[in-house]
Amino acid sequence: MKETISQEFKKVQDYICQELEALDGLGKFQEDLWQREEGGGGRTRIINHGELLEKGGVNFSEVFGPVSDLMRQQLGLDGKEFYATGVSIVLHPKNPHVPIMHMNIRYFEMDNGTYWFGGGIDMTPHYIDFQLAQDFHKSLAQVCDNYDASFYKKFKIWADDYFFIPHRNETRGVGGIFYDHLKADDNNSKHDLLNFALDLGRLFPKLYAHQAQDKRNLPFSEKQLQWRNIRRGRYVEFNLVYDRGTKFGLKTAGRIESILMSLPENASWFYDFSPEENSEEQNTLNHLRKGVDWIGIKK
Amino acid sequence: MKETISQEFKKVQDYICQELEALDGLGKFQEDLWQREEGGGGRTRIINHGELLEKGGVNFSEVFGPVSDLMRQQLGLDGKEFYATGVSIVLHPKNPHVPIMHMNIRYFEMDNGTYWFGGGIDMTPHYIDFQLAQDFHKSLAQVCDNYDASFYKKFKIWADDYFFIPHRNETRGVGGIFYDHLKADDNNSKHDLLNFALDLGRLFPKLYAHQAQDKRNLPFSEKQLQWRNIRRGRYVEFNLVYDRGTKFGLKTAGRIESILMSLPENASWFYDFSPEENSEEQNTLNHLRKGVDWIGIKK
Repeated sequence: MKETISQEFKKVQDYICQELEALDGLGKFQEDLWQREEGGGGRTRIINHGELLEKGGVNFSEVFGPVSDLMRQQLGLDGKEFYATGVSIVLHPKNPHVPIMHMNIRYFEMDNGTYWFGGGIDMTPHYIDFQLAQDFHKSLAQVCDNYDASFYKKFKIWADDYFFIPHRNETRGVGGIFYDHLKADDNNSKHDLLNFALDLGRLFPKLYAHQAQDKRNLPFSEKQLQWRNIRRGRYVEFNLVYDRGTKFGLKTAGRIESILMSLPENASWFYDFSPEENSEEQNTLNHLRKGVDWIGIKK
Repeated sequence: MKETISQEFKKVQDYICQELEALDGLGKFQEDLWQREEGGGGRTRIINHGELLEKGGVNFSEVFGPVSDLMRQQLGLDGKEFYATGVSIVLHPKNPHVPIMHMNIRYFEMDNGTYWFGGGIDMTPHYIDFQLAQDFHKSLAQVCDNYDASFYKKFKIWADDYFFIPHRNETRGVGGIFYDHLKADDNNSKHDLLNFALDLGRLFPKLYAHQAQDKRNLPFSEKQLQWRNIRRGRYVEFNLVYDRGTKFGLKTAGRIESILMSLPENASWFYDFSPEENSEEQNTLNHLRKGVDWIGIKK
């Protein structure tokens, strides 16, 4: 079945790239094929200086081989041989009114027969728009509900906990969903879980299109660009300090450029920056908290 | 004696700030005093948008208290109570022809009577100038030689190993010196080791003045600014992923703004960037290697 999964993941990558190119209207994805010495490889696709997207990556990979000591240690893996395939996306828009968005869907299998799915989608608005945050979470909840009534609630909390920057005591954005070690149960077969991942993949460009449509042409000031870059700085902090995939990739000397495609073209750090009272920036910061009920929030 | 050490470190901080303000000619350090709940505090001093320095920090801290489980684990500390004082500097210049420079001198003491000194100075040119790299290492070697004929050689190798970005397989810059767990021996008393640290502190502004003097007014292009920001991106990668002080500070929820003052105002990541063949940028990259004999290098 892993061949089917990786084929389907490739198709989802193709679909997402197509849709994002159509949405952008100018930028085109450049593809780099790469191989992994120990087994497998990937298709890294990058869009640069589009009309909407300043920098974005939509990566597919399928890697396998012996479990290294480091993987045993860091990932707690038991068997001798592993297989992993997935699609990873990060989009950094030019316009500060449009959010950063991330998605990952992945499948893992060991030679001893165990397997699991993992994934997630989360959104990092530079400026929070309550209506759009609600729309985002509603769409995720709808897809979750098609598979298990408990998924959204569980995975939303998981995202709050995962996409969190402890040293700032702030979330990366308005969260979304995150899940890991998901296996077949009474509700969902392995095939259903694959479909769940694929549904999320196919949802992604729609989510982004909806977030971008009314915002992409809004004018913005130098000050708003600066704020965008400060938010991007926090994104860099999260990815380099906490993100498991990034940390693992750096340690195992994966393909560095494919891993660090998640970093923005520009990011800023200003000493002890704090936004003006009652500003849009302050309002955004105030809501970078765990446990916000984005679907039920009063606007 | 720890009171003397911390007093002397404060004086060095004062001296360095004075000298750097004079060198900059425009920027002034802003001071933030802070206290640590568990004991001690610090004086964070930041310069912003000077004539020479775009962003720089010269921090003093003196912290003490019970050894936490995390400190036991991460720092391998044995006793019950610790005491630590030090001065830390990072300078990010505006002009890409002027290097980033870092210094740290620190003293550590446990309630069981053990103590040690640590420290280092390293330089990250955006564009390597062989003469200036040689001058930099020669000055460091001179100070080292006043204390122990083996110091420079040992500490230069230590810096190569410490200021290294494994996932890029490149050094942070042209290195410098790094030392840790330095205790009194036949050559140097504890007082001598304090003087070694203070000599390094007093050398720092002279080093920077020498590096900046012929370069600070050189014109630069957009392309060179972009390269500066790419190099800054690598600096961010090192500090967030590998620097022990930064990692420890983030984990123990130290004063975040004092820790992350080391990050530049702007940093850039371009997917799979590589400089043009035979360019100045390529020449710099080629020399970001361990084991370069900067004093003996042929220019």
